[in-house]
Amino acid sequence: MATELIRPILTVDVVLLTLHDDRIHVVLQAREKAPHAGELALVGGYVHPEEDQSTAAAAARVLRDKAGLAVRVLEQLMTFSGGDRDPRGWSASVAYYALLPHEEIAERGDASLRMLPFAQVKGLPFDHDAIVAGAMQRCRRRAAYSSLPAFLLSPAFTLPELRRAYEAALGRSLNDSAFRRKIDELRMVEPVSGSVSKATARPAQLFRLSKSGVVEFDRTV
Amino acid sequence: MATELIRPILTVDVVLLTLHDDRIHVVLQAREKAPHAGELALVGGYVHPEEDQSTAAAAARVLRDKAGLAVRVLEQLMTFSGGDRDPRGWSASVAYYALLPHEEIAERGDASLRMLPFAQVKGLPFDHDAIVAGAMQRCRRRAAYSSLPAFLLSPAFTLPELRRAYEAALGRSLNDSAFRRKIDELRMVEPVSGSVSKATARPAQLFRLSKSGVVEFDRTV
Repeated sequence: MATELIRPILTVDVVLLTLHDDRIHVVLQAREKAPHAGELALVGGYVHPEEDQSTAAAAARVLRDKAGLAVRVLEQLMTFSGGDRDPRGWSASVAYYALLPHEEIAERGDASLRMLPFAQVKGLPFDHDAIVAGAMQRCRRRAAYSSLPAFLLSPAFTLPELRRAYEAALGRSLNDSAFRRKIDELRMVEPVSGSVSKATARPAQLFRLSKSGVVEFDRTV
Repeated sequence: MATELIRPILTVDVVLLTLHDDRIHVVLQAREKAPHAGELALVGGYVHPEEDQSTAAAAARVLRDKAGLAVRVLEQLMTFSGGDRDPRGWSASVAYYALLPHEEIAERGDASLRMLPFAQVKGLPFDHDAIVAGAMQRCRRRAAYSSLPAFLLSPAFTLPELRRAYEAALGRSLNDSAFRRKIDELRMVEPVSGSVSKATARPAQLFRLSKSGVVEFDRTV
């Protein structure tokens, strides 16, 4: 095939978003190898055709093998490509974003992982700044009409926690009573029977996403 | 690099949408080569790292070289991948969608190009049915909050034409006065001074998208 002498490099990169101190944070990992060894970057890697069923499967494998993480939501963002983005050659990276509760990263205790508030994520290697900006924009849009922000929390959460997750994802504050009415209307959550949060001085009822409350995304694993 | 012995195939595919008889049509092309030689499929091809600056540039090149078309809007949809979608091997195809006026295809007179109403597009080779369905879904969503449907028309159009383009893209009819009020509010169009359409018995003022009316997309060429 004369027109296909050089095949581009195909990678995946995952923008891992979490909630900490009521702000969206991006989880980065120190790179093991050149280029940019030691620098913080998105968790990512080559697609392995011999083991990955798809680029989504590659992203899930990379998260598992490199960061020891399993996520409940993994959505494709878009593909970034070109001859200048990676010194190893012409490359295309299929970018994903994932949301996960802060506890899951803290529990890992992986020294290679670092969380930075979104506003402080700048100067990453490759075109990772642009990928992070795209993920944050997408997350904001989705938050306006889906249950996406709930995935920043543990599966059982209080309503004030859910509201703060929405506020962080949307980047603006919400009226509490309007928020509760909306959640009610959408039948987004259901009480976890007999469970109350011990995190607050006053016991608060715990909720989980109801089946009808999980608004569908393009790609979920 | 031991983990990177086989590089996947990287292609682009473009879902070309146009308006004909007040319905969205998909422009397909008879494939020149195997696999599926002679069958109608999306316009697409390999990414050429030696000449393409990005996958978007590859999509524009493929449209130009294979179909003789230049489009005003070309947006990335998503990447489809896996070991089963193409008999030539593990592949990733970065899918795009583009909108263009029916006249531009008719003027080409290219016998390899065929237009089919969206509802009749079924049984395409590879996973092109899924790509077309994704493009149509995206087009519908974007039509609800952007000037996207105007790109189905020639640069100068009448307001009834614009309304029919919106209706076809949205898949539902619109109230005429509400439509005109909305277009007015958004300052989406401006009159083309002195121009009237000759297509109708009663002369109708022609309009074009105003600069402020072109709502931004993720990627536009």
